[in-house]
Amino acid sequence: MFDIVPLKGGLDNVEGFFCGGVSVGLKSEGRNDVAFIRTSKPALVGAVFTSNKFQAAPIKHFKRYGETFLTNFILINSKNANAMTGEQGINDIDDIFSSLPLPTVNPVMSSTGVIGCRLNKSKIVKAFELFDFEGKDSDAAARAIMTTDRFKKEICLRVDLKEGGSFHIAAIAKGAGMICPSLATMLCFIATDALTPQDEIINLLNEAAEESFNAISVDGDTSTNDTLMLISSGKSGVWHKEAFTQALKLLTKEISLLIVKDGEGSKKVVAFEVKNAVTLQDAKSAAKALSNSLLVKTALFGEDPNWGRIASTIGASGVICDEERLYIKYDDVLVYSPSQKEMSAEIESLAARVMKKESFKITCDLGAGDKSYTAYGCDLGHEYVSINADYRS
Amino acid sequence: MFDIVPLKGGLDNVEGFFCGGVSVGLKSEGRNDVAFIRTSKPALVGAVFTSNKFQAAPIKHFKRYGETFLTNFILINSKNANAMTGEQGINDIDDIFSSLPLPTVNPVMSSTGVIGCRLNKSKIVKAFELFDFEGKDSDAAARAIMTTDRFKKEICLRVDLKEGGSFHIAAIAKGAGMICPSLATMLCFIATDALTPQDEIINLLNEAAEESFNAISVDGDTSTNDTLMLISSGKSGVWHKEAFTQALKLLTKEISLLIVKDGEGSKKVVAFEVKNAVTLQDAKSAAKALSNSLLVKTALFGEDPNWGRIASTIGASGVICDEERLYIKYDDVLVYSPSQKEMSAEIESLAARVMKKESFKITCDLGAGDKSYTAYGCDLGHEYVSINADYRS
Repeated sequence: MFDIVPLKGGLDNVEGFFCGGVSVGLKSEGRNDVAFIRTSKPALVGAVFTSNKFQAAPIKHFKRYGETFLTNFILINSKNANAMTGEQGINDIDDIFSSLPLPTVNPVMSSTGVIGCRLNKSKIVKAFELFDFEGKDSDAAARAIMTTDRFKKEICLRVDLKEGGSFHIAAIAKGAGMICPSLATMLCFIATDALTPQDEIINLLNEAAEESFNAISVDGDTSTNDTLMLISSGKSGVWHKEAFTQALKLLTKEISLLIVKDGEGSKKVVAFEVKNAVTLQDAKSAAKALSNSLLVKTALFGEDPNWGRIASTIGASGVICDEERLYIKYDDVLVYSPSQKEMSAEIESLAARVMKKESFKITCDLGAGDKSYTAYGCDLGHEYVSINADYRS
Repeated sequence: MFDIVPLKGGLDNVEGFFCGGVSVGLKSEGRNDVAFIRTSKPALVGAVFTSNKFQAAPIKHFKRYGETFLTNFILINSKNANAMTGEQGINDIDDIFSSLPLPTVNPVMSSTGVIGCRLNKSKIVKAFELFDFEGKDSDAAARAIMTTDRFKKEICLRVDLKEGGSFHIAAIAKGAGMICPSLATMLCFIATDALTPQDEIINLLNEAAEESFNAISVDGDTSTNDTLMLISSGKSGVWHKEAFTQALKLLTKEISLLIVKDGEGSKKVVAFEVKNAVTLQDAKSAAKALSNSLLVKTALFGEDPNWGRIASTIGASGVICDEERLYIKYDDVLVYSPSQKEMSAEIESLAARVMKKESFKITCDLGAGDKSYTAYGCDLGHEYVSINADYRS
């Protein structure tokens, strides 16, 4: 039906988009700190935002336009979240846009950084003199939105329909999965030239987020600014729902895993699959508890196949479970089953070998129902670990 | 009505109790690893246990006797939790007790350490040859139950009634508040010679736990072994409910704060008071979210009065709140109010001074209702911090 082809670069591949990033001195050492994404014609935009009760000013500003609407200009700054700044924080955004040297429709802003400080409007407005509004510098934009990120996050896919026609979908994102990934601040901007229908954009985003950003972070514990935004220029003239859904899911999953991989000091990305739970909520609760558990994370760092921490975390997550029905696997190595409660030295060494990999899966079969969910997490490095990683020795 | 007098030592002060600890080689370097607490006559015991679905074998073994009952012998080992060991784990406890060289009534065991390994019965039984069953070595017992603890935890209070008569209440505990204190494994054994009525012991324990161990850990996310046990010899012949309740609350609060203070690498104990929430559950949720937040903890370590992390954590905790009604104070320094959203340099320096203290209070007034709760947490040290503590600079 269709092929999904990864391309080099990011937003620059998507038709109808311009983008760039510059340094205006919000960050030190001349690093990029303000980015723009704009479209040649007003484009459909929709977003999924943080569930934090204290939503930042740019989110409130966005919502004044509606849930989905047309825009042709997105401005993004790092170093300052413009959160807890009240009505004045929203007015600051309008003030900044009033200095824009090009005509805009419903301009949108997004911010990340410290909470509780007014934006430095004069510095940000300086960016308008520095931007190349006709440029397509996705790399510069991706760098401008970074905060504690160790590497920039940028992905592009081209979807070729067998029936003819193709479209692009690309994203830049910021975020570094911290010890507790649910507290990671993330921003992700997705650009597509597919002809996305207005009445589907939010559902498509929510569905994709559920298996990507929500599996690593967001919902429940989230920052004031978390944003997943999709801007659709429609320039390809192509709409193929199945192909688009699949490409969007692939894109969001890949870029959210980059956030996990960028966990401060982390070396591994681990998938936690909880199988055969009674409810989907149980499967999610247990999988997310595993990906957030510091004891699990330190065991990952220590490459210690201490499945007891896995079991304890599941038991503590409040889900329906029974030690006489539980199975725990590290990739294909069964480390716990009701009939094999203690690991043999052989199994322990096989499991330890799995744990040396940069990426692997821990599967917990609760044997209680038929619902499954996979969450993603990283190990916890740093000195703190020395105490916990060696707990058993 | 009564005076509460702190005494040196621990369980050794309490009439009718013997205790001790020895090394049998479960830990390395000859450190104590098995302890006993026994009473001259069978004594009333009651306990509050972990809410983890996978309760350890010693907890299941305890419950076979009932909720409260008479016992004269408690055996405690570290290094092995005897959890996820199935029916065999329970049988192992009976096997160990069958070697006890003195007559016992309903002997009870408690374990802490690694999950998923059978107890080394022959090593543990060796302790029965080494114990001085007529001794009162509370220090040795307190040391034997330590795992990652940096210091032993032992407290004793004497309560003198104005109307005449007195009783003792003492505790030993283990536990080191980890980054996420709700995952800290804790054990606490309280001995008293007050004449505690059988029908009140569980309620009294639960009430005391709510403002102490539950404010730092336990409930929700807990290990497989968490145990708070009260053994009452009744030897003083004295019962005064109000005095006992107050002494028990003081004792459990003090010893639970020692667990917070022992947070791996921590330098500070911070009280997080959430005031004027709509429901008590809201107050608890917000206060515990603050004490568990890694971003808050790293800000404490960096002594950075970054109240934005406090606000963000409250907003993410799902409680009813509004930034136009919120007040945040560091001790007496008001850092955020609806009319003072940005800190002046003067306030920032006052708040920074508070944060240099070893112990202080962060108060968040939600202005939404009239319920309050205080949770306790510690800062997060270690290299990991370098990234987050300097986030603003």
